[in-house]
Amino acid sequence: MDFDSFLTSLGTSFIIFVVLMCLFAWLSSKPGNTVVYYPNRILKGLDPWEGGSRTRNPFTWIKEAMSSSEQDVINMSGLDTAVYFVFMSTVLGIFALSGIILLPALLPVAATDDSIQAAGKNTTSIGTFNDLDKLSMGNITAKSSRLWAFLVATYWVSFVTYFLLWRGYKHVSELRADALMSPEVRPQQFAVLVRDLPDLPKGQSRKEQVDSYFKAIYPDTFYRSMVVTNNKEANKIYEELEGYKKKLARAEAVYAESKSAGKPEGTRPTIKTGFLGLLGKRVDAIEYYNEKIKEIIPKLEAEQKITLKEKQLGAALVFFTSRVAAASAAQSLHAQLVDTWTVSDAPESRELIWNNLNIKFFQRQIRQYVVYVIVALTIMFYMIPIGLISALTTLDNLKKILPFLKPVINITALKTVLEAYLPQIALIVFLALLPKLLLFLSKIEGIPAVSHAVRAASGKYFYFTVLNVFIGVTVGGTLFKTFKSIEKDPNSIVDVLANSLPGNATFFLTYVALQFFVGYGLELSRIVPLIIYHLKRKYLCKTEAELKEAWFPGDLGYGTRVPSDMLIVTIVFCYSCIAPLIIPFGVVYFALGWLILRNQALKVYVPAYESYGRMWPHMFLRLVAALLLYQITMLGYFGSKKFIYVGFLIPLPILSLIFVYICQKRFYKSFSDTALEVASRELKETPSMEHIFRSYIPLSLNSEKVDDDQFEDALSQASRSGSFVV
Amino acid sequence: MDFDSFLTSLGTSFIIFVVLMCLFAWLSSKPGNTVVYYPNRILKGLDPWEGGSRTRNPFTWIKEAMSSSEQDVINMSGLDTAVYFVFMSTVLGIFALSGIILLPALLPVAATDDSIQAAGKNTTSIGTFNDLDKLSMGNITAKSSRLWAFLVATYWVSFVTYFLLWRGYKHVSELRADALMSPEVRPQQFAVLVRDLPDLPKGQSRKEQVDSYFKAIYPDTFYRSMVVTNNKEANKIYEELEGYKKKLARAEAVYAESKSAGKPEGTRPTIKTGFLGLLGKRVDAIEYYNEKIKEIIPKLEAEQKITLKEKQLGAALVFFTSRVAAASAAQSLHAQLVDTWTVSDAPESRELIWNNLNIKFFQRQIRQYVVYVIVALTIMFYMIPIGLISALTTLDNLKKILPFLKPVINITALKTVLEAYLPQIALIVFLALLPKLLLFLSKIEGIPAVSHAVRAASGKYFYFTVLNVFIGVTVGGTLFKTFKSIEKDPNSIVDVLANSLPGNATFFLTYVALQFFVGYGLELSRIVPLIIYHLKRKYLCKTEAELKEAWFPGDLGYGTRVPSDMLIVTIVFCYSCIAPLIIPFGVVYFALGWLILRNQALKVYVPAYESYGRMWPHMFLRLVAALLLYQITMLGYFGSKKFIYVGFLIPLPILSLIFVYICQKRFYKSFSDTALEVASRELKETPSMEHIFRSYIPLSLNSEKVDDDQFEDALSQASRSGSFVV
Repeated sequence: MDFDSFLTSLGTSFIIFVVLMCLFAWLSSKPGNTVVYYPNRILKGLDPWEGGSRTRNPFTWIKEAMSSSEQDVINMSGLDTAVYFVFMSTVLGIFALSGIILLPALLPVAATDDSIQAAGKNTTSIGTFNDLDKLSMGNITAKSSRLWAFLVATYWVSFVTYFLLWRGYKHVSELRADALMSPEVRPQQFAVLVRDLPDLPKGQSRKEQVDSYFKAIYPDTFYRSMVVTNNKEANKIYEELEGYKKKLARAEAVYAESKSAGKPEGTRPTIKTGFLGLLGKRVDAIEYYNEKIKEIIPKLEAEQKITLKEKQLGAALVFFTSRVAAASAAQSLHAQLVDTWTVSDAPESRELIWNNLNIKFFQRQIRQYVVYVIVALTIMFYMIPIGLISALTTLDNLKKILPFLKPVINITALKTVLEAYLPQIALIVFLALLPKLLLFLSKIEGIPAVSHAVRAASGKYFYFTVLNVFIGVTVGGTLFKTFKSIEKDPNSIVDVLANSLPGNATFFLTYVALQFFVGYGLELSRIVPLIIYHLKRKYLCKTEAELKEAWFPGDLGYGTRVPSDMLIVTIVFCYSCIAPLIIPFGVVYFALGWLILRNQALKVYVPAYESYGRMWPHMFLRLVAALLLYQITMLGYFGSKKFIYVGFLIPLPILSLIFVYICQKRFYKSFSDTALEVASRELKETPSMEHIFRSYIPLSLNSEKVDDDQFEDALSQASRSGSFVV
Repeated sequence: MDFDSFLTSLGTSFIIFVVLMCLFAWLSSKPGNTVVYYPNRILKGLDPWEGGSRTRNPFTWIKEAMSSSEQDVINMSGLDTAVYFVFMSTVLGIFALSGIILLPALLPVAATDDSIQAAGKNTTSIGTFNDLDKLSMGNITAKSSRLWAFLVATYWVSFVTYFLLWRGYKHVSELRADALMSPEVRPQQFAVLVRDLPDLPKGQSRKEQVDSYFKAIYPDTFYRSMVVTNNKEANKIYEELEGYKKKLARAEAVYAESKSAGKPEGTRPTIKTGFLGLLGKRVDAIEYYNEKIKEIIPKLEAEQKITLKEKQLGAALVFFTSRVAAASAAQSLHAQLVDTWTVSDAPESRELIWNNLNIKFFQRQIRQYVVYVIVALTIMFYMIPIGLISALTTLDNLKKILPFLKPVINITALKTVLEAYLPQIALIVFLALLPKLLLFLSKIEGIPAVSHAVRAASGKYFYFTVLNVFIGVTVGGTLFKTFKSIEKDPNSIVDVLANSLPGNATFFLTYVALQFFVGYGLELSRIVPLIIYHLKRKYLCKTEAELKEAWFPGDLGYGTRVPSDMLIVTIVFCYSCIAPLIIPFGVVYFALGWLILRNQALKVYVPAYESYGRMWPHMFLRLVAALLLYQITMLGYFGSKKFIYVGFLIPLPILSLIFVYICQKRFYKSFSDTALEVASRELKETPSMEHIFRSYIPLSLNSEKVDDDQFEDALSQASRSGSFVV
């Protein structure tokens, strides 16, 4: 890629960005679009526009995002979102501090060393050097003492990273402690999840088994238990019921609409009862649905009774009357045999994966390893298509392979655009396929909470992106030439990586720019959700509930955001010294990301769950992994420059490992467990145990009659629970 | 070593053993020796001889040892000793079951294959083959299908080991649970050790800091705390006081003795007050010591006050009113910063290493790694002397290096004995030097309990013995010939090991025999302690206390026993298929060991502490490590026999790793922590918290006045503690 196509790419991206910004400013001020641009505020019962005025500066959102405090984010979008911003600002800080030193120091050093270019002038290879490459470490003569500047820069980037990561970890740890010691009553802080119940002793029910076990250990703080049941059948009936209720509401809305339109008596909607509503007898829809609902309700109630009585599984939720008791129980070994009565933190009820709760201890272990193997294979096998794509999608290659494209490609304007975008678009489309699969794989590991599964999927995605995209593209570009040398000696992979880095610098510059201009532009303008919402509103939605479903924004989805951010981090780290010009691109990516996502977090997205910042240690570890990759790459690259003082870089990876060790030792355990000093803070009010207990009853089992069936004996305890203080 | 010297060695060992047994039968029946042969029974207030009769069969002890139950061992010598017997009987079972199949199956297969010997007849190398080697796998022709028998045998040994280890782990886990749920009140089950207290807030004492912290978290179950103090000065004064008290008692005893001897007024003993009692003024000893004691007592009391008030350190013992609370607290994270308020199980007061308690979290980590490096260096450096010894102590080598010994060595009888014993004695003497050093190193890691330090030292000792003695001797013997091949390719170390194994089989046969005949003979007969006791009694001891000190037996010392047992296990495992003749030796070692140590545990040794079987996971892991070494060695050995189906052995090491993983997952955590279901059992009586608390006060601080000083405020709580039930 030459300098022209790089500028074209940058310019096009910027134009798209400006267009999207204007669209946003225009569209977001229309009242009909508020549900798309301010759903989080609307759902929280707030006025879409702060202060209530509609005629306002189109850039007010920037001011609002900038002036919002961390507490605002926590209030509007939860701690997990706030932690994501800590991640973004930490990375932003690392890049900004690195750039301040590296850009003024390294660019002149690189630009004024033109020995290679001078040498190149005498040969025909001048074409491979463009203006961007002049500013990179590739322009430095081998063994030159100018390399010292780059060596010091490598240290600077590392130490800046250590410092800011340490600060970030400490800050998030405090945020988590604050959230966990909040005086609000949160049901999950009073519950633990018990899995791997041993076989039932004769003549005992699951309920009795669990109750007697925990009553013996916690005579004072045990409240009651909820045995997990196999709800598959009940859920099916419940969903059927809900479906009919929705259809009934829709039919009634259609009927009401038809009334107002001229005919006061209206047209009663009809449907066919057969296959997909296409065949069968035509009947009155409202009557038909009413009948169906009447039919299903007793069926559901019967199924609920059967489920509660006969479909009890080997897992339970146990409720305690104090947060300390629950936090301490979740960390303690209960049974002498470790694979029975395993107790862990209860997730929030909305993020429980009920189907996974009954999976036994060793089966979970096996599933985990099987999934790891599958993921590893996936990463390996995707290597092949990605390698092919990056090898094919240079235009020269295309021309060779598909000669009939030649006339099209030779049009200069088109050629420049294509050359600028083709590989990147291929990459982005390709990456969009994967997250769902990884989340699915993580869920079948037997993980009990969605947030945990998202973290697991996010980790897998990170390894995928770094291994495939970064190393794949980088090495893939030069792989064909150097394949033989790797075959001979696998250790030379570091050399190959190091040698192929500078050549790919412009590719990644374009990639980063595309990500922030187009990616964040689309993010802010919400063009796609807006179009979908308006289409649905016009042609599909009849009732209020359907309308709300159409604009409901979902959550921030950091499970997929973090890995793609991490890819940018890895790219910028690895090129920070080799081609310092990439640093400003990294800064813009995270600055723009911070600003736009701040707006989205405050106004658009609604968090689906709250894990109290447990994502942070994952982000932290991956940041250090990226740093390590960078340090090892630099070792290889300095080696390939035949710099004899390259040994001075060896302490860096060791330092990184020590840094991780100390951080994890000091902070990590308080992320996996709840510290008791935190859980022992006083509550605002005496918690209503009945309410806490009820919040965990699945919707499909929630009926007034539940208590009498399953919880009869436990209920007698509830009267005691009024008198304690946490 | 040829067959003659092997038989000589075996015969001599056996004669020594018979002599020692006779000595034991004769000496143990003398009434004056009961304190040497039955101290444990005497200290427990039991009659030395069961049934009380002195004229009894000299082999009764065998019957008594055989008929004693596990419960007897636990009652007389604690759970740790019982676990050691589980270890011995497990290994015994493994070897017995292996031998039953391997001996009748493999010996004929090996003996009837004389192709190598036949080949040897034609050359001059016949001298290197002796009758023992004919019975080993070395006698099998390369690529012979007879190797299938040995391959199946390798599997048999492994599966027997898995089966018995699983049973052993399960059994010890149950023993531990039984002991921990015992209705006896044991102070350490009510206490936790808190280390890494954060800096004192202004205006608070340590005591207040600890009390307020734990009262907030455990309002119902917190009893009181004991801040750890720097007792160095107090200990010094206390020891001085105790020294004078002892000397006073001794002087009084001398005086009383002199009275009875003719002169009714007696001779008052005198001493010189100067350097070592050799210089200075001569004074009346009794008066002098009385005066000194009077002088020191107030000094001690003053120092106690100062210590309690001003020498408080950053660690504390915290006492709870219930076992569940203490067990749960020891497993829970208390502070948001993991390196502050670290809580762990409290060890018994008698095994607390007070000086280590104040060492901070990260300092402990650093100390640990520093110690690991030192130990690794030790293992490496001892490699050199051991290698030299095993190379030098073949007589042929001695003759070459020290030619003036030639006439001595050439005396046939002497030559045979020397050849049989020299290397083994060198080895045994050499090994006696190390355990103290390793224990010292383990203690400076910052470990808070003696039993834990012993486990750590034992682990280091295991690696030392296996790496140095086994691999050192084995490879050392053939190293000089094959040194070049290792230099070229480090992977060939397995081949070298495999090739040099058969040649060293007789060496190890002799080694094992020496260990059990002489080692266990000396153990049972207690010749050395007996002589020391009688010498002390005759010439040194004057008072009852001194006499008791002279015969006090100490504990079983499994910290050093287990590693040397493990060396035997490793040797027998590795040779079990190569030279199956070693299996009976292993069986005799562990059978004899079991029998003799059973007697010693029941009658002699007094346990110094109780760790509730926490040694077992260490033993287990090392047993599996030995098994792995065996499996890998067999892989190499089959490879060197050019057996093409050697690949069938590859699943074995993988199986071993899976086996360890499952066992550790299922059982280990209940060894590192106390399961709550175990701790929640009811107690026989309401525990006296005052008594529990007092049992942890160090001797040097134990005075009637202590409460008023340090524990004033906490004592007011004690009145509450009478009403709870655990």
